Amino acid sequence: MNAPLIALSRRLRNTPFTSRIEAFGVQAYTVYNHMLLPSRFRGLEEDYWHLRNHVQIWDVACERQVQLKGPDASRLAQLLTVRDIRNFEVGRGGLVPVCDHEGKLLNDPVVFRVAEDCYWFSISDSDVAFWAGGLALGMGLDVEVSEIDVNPLAIQGRHADDVLAKVFSDEIRDTKFFRFSTHEFRGHPLRIARSGWSAQGGFEIFVDDWELGGELYDAICEAGEPYEIGPGCPNLIERIEAGLMTYGTDITREHTPLEGGMEKYCSLDADIDAIGIDALRAQRASGVTRKIVGVMVDGERVPGQRDPWPIRSGSDVVGSITSITWSPRLGCNVGLGMVTTQHTDIDTTLTLDAPDASRTATVCAVPFEGASQR
Amino acid sequence: MNAPLIALSRRLRNTPFTSRIEAFGVQAYTVYNHMLLPSRFRGLEEDYWHLRNHVQIWDVACERQVQLKGPDASRLAQLLTVRDIRNFEVGRGGLVPVCDHEGKLLNDPVVFRVAEDCYWFSISDSDVAFWAGGLALGMGLDVEVSEIDVNPLAIQGRHADDVLAKVFSDEIRDTKFFRFSTHEFRGHPLRIARSGWSAQGGFEIFVDDWELGGELYDAICEAGEPYEIGPGCPNLIERIEAGLMTYGTDITREHTPLEGGMEKYCSLDADIDAIGIDALRAQRASGVTRKIVGVMVDGERVPGQRDPWPIRSGSDVVGSITSITWSPRLGCNVGLGMVTTQHTDIDTTLTLDAPDASRTATVCAVPFEGASQR
Repeated sequence: MNAPLIALSRRLRNTPFTSRIEAFGVQAYTVYNHMLLPSRFRGLEEDYWHLRNHVQIWDVACERQVQLKGPDASRLAQLLTVRDIRNFEVGRGGLVPVCDHEGKLLNDPVVFRVAEDCYWFSISDSDVAFWAGGLALGMGLDVEVSEIDVNPLAIQGRHADDVLAKVFSDEIRDTKFFRFSTHEFRGHPLRIARSGWSAQGGFEIFVDDWELGGELYDAICEAGEPYEIGPGCPNLIERIEAGLMTYGTDITREHTPLEGGMEKYCSLDADIDAIGIDALRAQRASGVTRKIVGVMVDGERVPGQRDPWPIRSGSDVVGSITSITWSPRLGCNVGLGMVTTQHTDIDTTLTLDAPDASRTATVCAVPFEGASQR
Repeated sequence: MNAPLIALSRRLRNTPFTSRIEAFGVQAYTVYNHMLLPSRFRGLEEDYWHLRNHVQIWDVACERQVQLKGPDASRLAQLLTVRDIRNFEVGRGGLVPVCDHEGKLLNDPVVFRVAEDCYWFSISDSDVAFWAGGLALGMGLDVEVSEIDVNPLAIQGRHADDVLAKVFSDEIRDTKFFRFSTHEFRGHPLRIARSGWSAQGGFEIFVDDWELGGELYDAICEAGEPYEIGPGCPNLIERIEAGLMTYGTDITREHTPLEGGMEKYCSLDADIDAIGIDALRAQRASGVTRKIVGVMVDGERVPGQRDPWPIRSGSDVVGSITSITWSPRLGCNVGLGMVTTQHTDIDTTLTLDAPDASRTATVCAVPFEGASQR
């Protein structure tokens, strides 16, 4: 079949940057939180090399901000995640697994504490505001839950500091990882964090004004010209090489953060009131039976993937590979997937049943060797 | 720009019918509840005429079923909607606005009571399971909330009864509107309701087995051959003519059901415990200030629309048109949108600022005259 188009409509929300994205000739979109997320500009590999070698501006407005604000904001924020965030001071952020009472993942957002009584959950693709709002109402908490009109714009790549220093000031260079500070653009204060969904480094700017957002986009493009800045988006090759899992693809509603390799974000020994923490403690005690791994896969370039591909040890199916791509830099296929824990040791050899052929898959550490710049 | 493609991935979930849809050469997809929804097969107008003149099979698996099951299912179901559903016996369904505590719409599902202690909310595009699950947990209710693996397949059009009578039995013809009954296909019982998102009449089959779903799809296509059955999907022209609003497009998170023309589904005088009902009572008392209307719009065929277009009375902007299309049957443009209540009388003349030109818009009753077959 011909590649299907996306049917554009109001329901798939535009962003403050859509007109710029389309002027650049975006080739493909995906939909994320009911919003358009560009997914290709030049071609997958061209976008990859451009991201690695230059610097990109990303419309990631679809990373919606779920705001908790009010006297019970801290209590609700902690209830929402199994990570101990009691010591998150204002300006600090971090990845926080959000689970249901069975410890199953509802989302894997990054949360920033933006004021003593205010948190922003920068969410992956599910309506966290509904979960938080239902809980708050059901428990009678004194907190306002809303998806606010804040649209992140990311600058990713080795020249991100240089570009933003020109647009804002050299102070931007002092921003620590997963911390934000406030910087002015044309008199308007904007929160800017060192964060983003690549391993190339960079920033996310929390744009709270649509018109200003367009102007900022243009100003960044202008400042980035000497660095060959161009439009970009989360890149399949780069994110797999970096071992960045996608909620909905590699980890889903059916998995726990322990299965998803997020142990370090689960404060199971902390004395906190968090939904799902008891279930995760029980899972830790009884032992996790499946876990996410990286694999290097032999043979030629694998075909495009839409569904999980089964992976075997001998004739026993022991899991599936949920993301896979050819790595032009490593010269082999790299993938992420979940397998039963007895097959998760580095260098374990398995067999991947790709649609074109069965191939040898070797369990590897992620980020894939040499894949990360950090 | 060239029309952008949709970037297919596991996160945009396939359905049991995707392979059939793609074999038919689906031209475009949209995304609905994190799942693929076909949006064009032959072309918008060709699909429209085929739906009106023949019969179509629709992959609407994206109408996810949020199941409430357990001793407190009835209590939670009633809490979720401002419509009095206490008298919904098993087998009955109906449209039920789901609101937050401010009366703002979270979803406009159809709910079916499938057992004494079990309800299925057939949802529009938002994660209702998160809202219901958060509430249930926060309130300590004894009910299990889940998105179940049930994938609706719709048959819409004038020959729907004839086709399904061949696949199941003539008893299917006795199904009343918004009622379901159970029918066997190859020994497997399936719930089938007279419902669906067109004004052409038909059924929705709740498919709870993927492999059987594919076989059922093929069997329906075979049985429908004499009626020129073909693949289809909710059609922009047909649904605007019928006055069917889309959540996320014509009515959003910012609107109440009273603004959305859903008064008859709001039991504001019933003695029920329902979230948002007090806010709606207050809004009724103080008066609704904006309301959805249909408009007929003069002039040539309007261009495609992605954003709301402002609508004026003289120089005052009084609302916006959120859905609009050329009706090949009525020979004019027809649209839906929200305007301030003093401009909602039938035959009120307004001015629509379409991107190509300003045009005269006349408020009309919906369904547009002669547009409905029922």
